Amino acid sequence: MSPPKPTGQLLKKLRSLMKNIKYVTEPLQAYIIPSGDAHQSEYLADCDKRRAFISGFTGSAGTAVVTEQHACLWTDGRYFLQASKEMDDNWTLIKEGVPGTLTQGAWLAKMLPVGSRVGADPSLVSYATWKPLQTHLEAAGHSLIPIAGANLVDLVWDQEKPLPPTGIVQPLALAYTGKSSHDKVEDVLSQMREKGASMLIVTALDEIAWVLNLRGSDIPYNPVFFSYLVITGNSQVSLFIDEGKITHAVRSHFGEEGLQVSIHPYEKIHSFLNEHIPEQEGRVWISNNSSYGLTALIPEKQRITEITPICLMKAVKNPVEIQGLTNAHIRDAAALCCYFAWLEKEVLRGTVTEISGAKKLEEFRKEQEDYVGLSFATISSVGPNGAIIHYQPSPETDRTITTEELYLCDSGGQYLDGTTDVTRTIHLGTPTQYEKECFTRVFKGQFSLGSCIFPSKIKGNCLDTLARKPLWDVGLDYLHGTGHGIGAYLNVHEGPIGVSWRTLPDDPGLQEGMFISNEPGYYEDGKFGIRLENIVRVVPASTPHNFKDRGFLTFETITLVPIQTKMLVPEVLTEKEVSYLNDYHALCREKVGPLLKKLGHQEAREWLYRETEPIG
Amino acid sequence: MSPPKPTGQLLKKLRSLMKNIKYVTEPLQAYIIPSGDAHQSEYLADCDKRRAFISGFTGSAGTAVVTEQHACLWTDGRYFLQASKEMDDNWTLIKEGVPGTLTQGAWLAKMLPVGSRVGADPSLVSYATWKPLQTHLEAAGHSLIPIAGANLVDLVWDQEKPLPPTGIVQPLALAYTGKSSHDKVEDVLSQMREKGASMLIVTALDEIAWVLNLRGSDIPYNPVFFSYLVITGNSQVSLFIDEGKITHAVRSHFGEEGLQVSIHPYEKIHSFLNEHIPEQEGRVWISNNSSYGLTALIPEKQRITEITPICLMKAVKNPVEIQGLTNAHIRDAAALCCYFAWLEKEVLRGTVTEISGAKKLEEFRKEQEDYVGLSFATISSVGPNGAIIHYQPSPETDRTITTEELYLCDSGGQYLDGTTDVTRTIHLGTPTQYEKECFTRVFKGQFSLGSCIFPSKIKGNCLDTLARKPLWDVGLDYLHGTGHGIGAYLNVHEGPIGVSWRTLPDDPGLQEGMFISNEPGYYEDGKFGIRLENIVRVVPASTPHNFKDRGFLTFETITLVPIQTKMLVPEVLTEKEVSYLNDYHALCREKVGPLLKKLGHQEAREWLYRETEPIG
Repeated sequence: MSPPKPTGQLLKKLRSLMKNIKYVTEPLQAYIIPSGDAHQSEYLADCDKRRAFISGFTGSAGTAVVTEQHACLWTDGRYFLQASKEMDDNWTLIKEGVPGTLTQGAWLAKMLPVGSRVGADPSLVSYATWKPLQTHLEAAGHSLIPIAGANLVDLVWDQEKPLPPTGIVQPLALAYTGKSSHDKVEDVLSQMREKGASMLIVTALDEIAWVLNLRGSDIPYNPVFFSYLVITGNSQVSLFIDEGKITHAVRSHFGEEGLQVSIHPYEKIHSFLNEHIPEQEGRVWISNNSSYGLTALIPEKQRITEITPICLMKAVKNPVEIQGLTNAHIRDAAALCCYFAWLEKEVLRGTVTEISGAKKLEEFRKEQEDYVGLSFATISSVGPNGAIIHYQPSPETDRTITTEELYLCDSGGQYLDGTTDVTRTIHLGTPTQYEKECFTRVFKGQFSLGSCIFPSKIKGNCLDTLARKPLWDVGLDYLHGTGHGIGAYLNVHEGPIGVSWRTLPDDPGLQEGMFISNEPGYYEDGKFGIRLENIVRVVPASTPHNFKDRGFLTFETITLVPIQTKMLVPEVLTEKEVSYLNDYHALCREKVGPLLKKLGHQEAREWLYRETEPIG
Repeated sequence: MSPPKPTGQLLKKLRSLMKNIKYVTEPLQAYIIPSGDAHQSEYLADCDKRRAFISGFTGSAGTAVVTEQHACLWTDGRYFLQASKEMDDNWTLIKEGVPGTLTQGAWLAKMLPVGSRVGADPSLVSYATWKPLQTHLEAAGHSLIPIAGANLVDLVWDQEKPLPPTGIVQPLALAYTGKSSHDKVEDVLSQMREKGASMLIVTALDEIAWVLNLRGSDIPYNPVFFSYLVITGNSQVSLFIDEGKITHAVRSHFGEEGLQVSIHPYEKIHSFLNEHIPEQEGRVWISNNSSYGLTALIPEKQRITEITPICLMKAVKNPVEIQGLTNAHIRDAAALCCYFAWLEKEVLRGTVTEISGAKKLEEFRKEQEDYVGLSFATISSVGPNGAIIHYQPSPETDRTITTEELYLCDSGGQYLDGTTDVTRTIHLGTPTQYEKECFTRVFKGQFSLGSCIFPSKIKGNCLDTLARKPLWDVGLDYLHGTGHGIGAYLNVHEGPIGVSWRTLPDDPGLQEGMFISNEPGYYEDGKFGIRLENIVRVVPASTPHNFKDRGFLTFETITLVPIQTKMLVPEVLTEKEVSYLNDYHALCREKVGPLLKKLGHQEAREWLYRETEPIG
């Protein structure tokens, strides 16, 4: 990791802009720089990395607040170490999720002089975040001011700011999507009718990509494209996008799928809405995860602010998507087997580092059919770097993979038929007893969650404790959630579902056909990190009873990469856990073995068989 | 249970009042009748049972909504059977917690003609309930109107309405409270200063009783008294109460504890607040669980609406309260042992019924030192009645306790040193294999929750699944929460903590010194009910590690009544569960045995020893 970014001059400029009446009607006492872009994306195009630019902190989640006196960054447990290394002394790290930590609203309310004006770019803050913050600040005698004309960080950035991406959009064939864009829009229209909505405004990029069966390349790792989509009750579909991104292939695709789409310039969304909202006889539906700026265009009484029907439809995979995700995970497992088999030999030469290892893994992925790219920057981390939960190796921090330290590798691929995300932690020498015990408890948690049976539609937070209990039993825990939704050749983190001690505001409950990750971990700062991550599919459970006809569900693990058995302490395992692991390993052999053979990776196949020897 | 209450005439009168401009400025299209009183109490004095009066449904939770066309009652899974039996055909039962059920707001928004006026008595609805309902209704083009002048149900009730209770208030000695009211108020003042509050308005009756070290008898089972309390930053303590309830003993008690209290008539709270709120230089603290009527008296910007500091202080028991609760549970266990021993013999004569059994149990409780009364109406339920989760036997439903059916007994006592709440389910003949399997899984859930280790301050909802998992494993579940807080000679249900799949809005997380119930169950409609309920104390856990110095906690079970071992299926139990049960039963012998001997209950002592024979 580089030395902290010097931010003194940047903050000085920003503070001066906060008082410059060319950009603000009255001076601001605080300015909020959120993490997201105008679509509330988690991963960002370079031109949208404003919070990283101003603070130096490059993690995927975090909000910066700059006042005349202070510059503070809120982030969660995944990023405490990284943020403290990346930020210089001008910045104070505020640790979310730690008891006693103030929220941004509470902090601002407490620190600012009465009657302060807090500014933020209304296009970058979701309505769901803006509204309670506004209420909180107003209750404390302050106000939250939308600074819509110019983003103050962009003004500081000025000439240095990267240009927006210009890549073209590609159609995704029915063989991968399983349902035409026409049929998807029909389903959306039927749900709009049910809610009395005559207009739906879609701002989440993965929702637009999914419903139109298109993919793009505007944001690294996420195959999406900058756009807005508006669907009206009279079946008009309006797509707001830079026209240069729409090729002939895209127009033919709409024709083939029977969808009429009118194309508008990206920046015309505001004027279009201002013109057409007043015409609406029904209500206007916009997710409260959309920006405050767009949401505020709709009269409050006319709004529906629930998550969009697309968000829910996308979360429940159709049979083609299910098959695609399953297949993609087999190919992805083959790539990982090749990598780990190669690494086992190469490590002895002492030349493989976190970065070169990650590159090698990428090469093995590239060999796989329908491979498009990585689904996120590979977390390839050795020893103490493994404790930085969302670590990404840089030349300055790059550590050699050795037989002395644990190696945590969290990676994933984008394939035309699915997105993958898998973490394995291995030791290529002799682990300590303590490392083994921690690993065993992480495995037990993963088993407990992965094998549990639960009533249909319960929310993911109800299952979180299952994954933590074996760690809690000995006074350990981990400071991140346990699971996230995942897209079908879309974003690696996909709402509205997940598994965490936190409740998700829009969680519709777990249903057959959903996919989530199952990834407990344990991290010892300065020493090591352990995480085991599988993707699991929600499937019906076979139970002797079916209370109140609710339907009971369980998980099927579709990630098929061996768990390193030498890291397990047999005495800490139950019989059930041993037989679950042996069954899982038999499945890895059965599903991944033939592919390795077909690809001619004999050594990797031998490694797979060695690593999946039954235990117990 | 009696036949359903005929409500046709009552609804006719109510609907006519809803249009009578003597009481409403414009006709109402709907009127909401909540369950609570002006203090949002769960248990009610007879004069406050408005929802039961209008609907016939007598359960402790439920909200009625009357429109011109419909009369609907929302209640939760504990009461579905009871409500459907108690209400006549004028009423529709709406089942909360069942997927797809509309909330009151959503139902009203959907059913009412646009622009409807929904009325409710603002003193009976908490701010926390009123505000989102108002937002929801306004978004749908309706309005929520406070009908403050007269409660419309009271007008229907008229002459028949019972008079308010007039019992006197009693001081509770320091030997039971462990802390003087003066010191408690000092702690409150210090927390007010921390929040910048110059006035605290306390409306919850148990909070007032606790902070003043007083107890009353205005509400059955809850030793509280109707009052409001206002504490101001200059240490003024104003108690609003019918002066007839304040005896010389109470005045001396304040003197002895060094607390200056000024007494005002109960109904002067509004005028007092109207006079003194404008004088406040600091903010005014009122829990958002207080009524909308009182909360609305405070300018929004001046309000703090978090739960009161008293609510939190009360939840963490002090050493004297901990010892008192522990002791009360030993005496309470002795009474239950006497009852079950007696019942085992008497059942053969075929003369014991649910009601006569409950009376006998009450007699055994009366024998115990410091006994005051029951902490709630005993749920004494045989066979199918056991499936009515909050069943109370009535002459019409009273069933004989036999050797043929399961018997579920959920009861508790108020003692000067503590409140108890315990459920045991027993079979006095030969249970079916299915009954045994269900019982065993309920026991496993209770064990899993009761023995778990967890990080300090995690919220109770994170633990709920532990109690359900053994049932989920075979496709079973129960439709109620798993645990509630409990008072120290106060309300048997006490916030702000609990264990449920639902999150509690004000849950501060579990801390050492808190007490909650641990009560999984299983209910088969029309057949039987099983519930096992213990009270557990939150204590530090001894773990080999202590991640991030968070401190790990576990539970110590203070309820000491044998679990019927013949109901357990040994093959479904793990070794850990068997040894936990044997240890628990050894503790029952050790703690309760000597007391039974001292009280001369030789037969009960023999029963205790028989029922606690080690298994496995």
